[in-house]
Amino acid sequence: MVVAMIGIGHIGGSLAIALRENGFAGEVIGVDRQPETLNKALRRRLIDRTLPLDEAVAAADLVVLATPVDGMLELLPKVLDRVEQQVVMDVGSTKEQLLRVVKDHPRRARFVATHPMAGRENSGVEAAVADLFTGKFTVLCDVEASDADAVSVVERLYGSIPMQIVYLDGRAHDLHTAYVSHISHISSFALALTVLAKETDEDRIFELASSGFDSTVRLAKSSPDMWVPIFRQNRDFVLDVLDEHINTLALFRSYLIKSNFDGIRELIEKANRIRTVLRGAPQNTAESQKPL
Amino acid sequence: MVVAMIGIGHIGGSLAIALRENGFAGEVIGVDRQPETLNKALRRRLIDRTLPLDEAVAAADLVVLATPVDGMLELLPKVLDRVEQQVVMDVGSTKEQLLRVVKDHPRRARFVATHPMAGRENSGVEAAVADLFTGKFTVLCDVEASDADAVSVVERLYGSIPMQIVYLDGRAHDLHTAYVSHISHISSFALALTVLAKETDEDRIFELASSGFDSTVRLAKSSPDMWVPIFRQNRDFVLDVLDEHINTLALFRSYLIKSNFDGIRELIEKANRIRTVLRGAPQNTAESQKPL
Repeated sequence: MVVAMIGIGHIGGSLAIALRENGFAGEVIGVDRQPETLNKALRRRLIDRTLPLDEAVAAADLVVLATPVDGMLELLPKVLDRVEQQVVMDVGSTKEQLLRVVKDHPRRARFVATHPMAGRENSGVEAAVADLFTGKFTVLCDVEASDADAVSVVERLYGSIPMQIVYLDGRAHDLHTAYVSHISHISSFALALTVLAKETDEDRIFELASSGFDSTVRLAKSSPDMWVPIFRQNRDFVLDVLDEHINTLALFRSYLIKSNFDGIRELIEKANRIRTVLRGAPQNTAESQKPL
Repeated sequence: MVVAMIGIGHIGGSLAIALRENGFAGEVIGVDRQPETLNKALRRRLIDRTLPLDEAVAAADLVVLATPVDGMLELLPKVLDRVEQQVVMDVGSTKEQLLRVVKDHPRRARFVATHPMAGRENSGVEAAVADLFTGKFTVLCDVEASDADAVSVVERLYGSIPMQIVYLDGRAHDLHTAYVSHISHISSFALALTVLAKETDEDRIFELASSGFDSTVRLAKSSPDMWVPIFRQNRDFVLDVLDEHINTLALFRSYLIKSNFDGIRELIEKANRIRTVLRGAPQNTAESQKPL
């Protein structure tokens, strides 16, 4: 199968490697606005060749959109205008607006909306890695609006990696990702800003970071080019969960002010339940233990 | 050198393995309130033998306190009462109160206050690992109040792992750890609570967690037995940085409400500076990129 990858960044590049390595893609045609990105992708053999967008769409069996989500709102209708029997899919982090934009497009049924739930804080073609998606979950949205053969191609693609598939409608996707993914990024950006504001000694931050700070601010390294469009498209759900998050922090604050450490213990015990939800090792309650 | 390890949890157990493996400790005597912990530590060969506290102190060249920080306030004076030429050190996460408690103790100079900046969210003897500390930073506090030979023993101990040593006074230590370590834990606990409150579908949390949530809530698995005493002892500095954190999140909220996405871009760009402070790879600005 010939795959046209539109946008050769961390996600598009990683997907290109995975699909070439496992044989799902016989050929990957790369498309990107940045010539330097295409050169790097060719040198690293992430893609087999490059073509202008129109020619890539015409030559492909499957077109994958892997640009930031603001660009997709213009790109997807343009690609669908040029599609006959090709399958088109996206791998973006927001869905509701994108689905609305192509709702009445005559080729809508050739499109399958997807969101592979993986990624690291690094961005760009240099950050592409072969095993980014292995064993993770991917979301397919509103599949009833897509042709059965198109959905089947996309399911085989994710099965080849392999990723586990979850089916959601676009609105539910955006709500759940606001709650589980997008708020984590805001929390991390804010934590980095807080520490940069309060801790004027940068050497101290570096020295003390291994005590937990490094993992909570990992996401704060993420690029505004991708995250501003996500927050714009998912503003309402993100605001909803952000309000709840600020209220929870205010509760910690109020307990600290009152030196209500029993209250703080209760909050921590409730938070610990995340361990079982994430299906990690059971919480250990040995008394002789030392914090992070 | 004979080392008495008081408290065989994640930190005490990990330190015991490291010091036995690198030869710094010829023998490790384990002390713990929980007989089951001592049995596990013996079976895993983290320690060579066990003794009651008094006998362990008498038999040791170096006594290491690795219990939660509330227990240390009582334990350290009791241990110093029994010390002649032995060296005593702690590995706790807060320092100011502990240093105050032994300020006028006749054997104060045999004590060296330390805080190795490493740890994972898992707790207890089962979570002990040999390489926990390798290459990380450790803090030594108020060394001018300790005998030079005692400081030298502790410096050789950390050098044997090896860890890099930073010297701070107790108050500065507590301030910096509040800013870099303790706030990360509150942020993570609060994020876990927020998502557990808003996202009623636990399967969804599990499925979508690899999109960043898992790394920001890792610390939310941490035990209240260790963290409540830390927040109690470092309440004022923690409140100070928590106020700033809530204000930063309120700024994100206000920009979202006003749809001021240029403002959000500025915040993210500022937050990205954490990448250079943590001395990771330089931020990549390729346009074709995809979020976490």
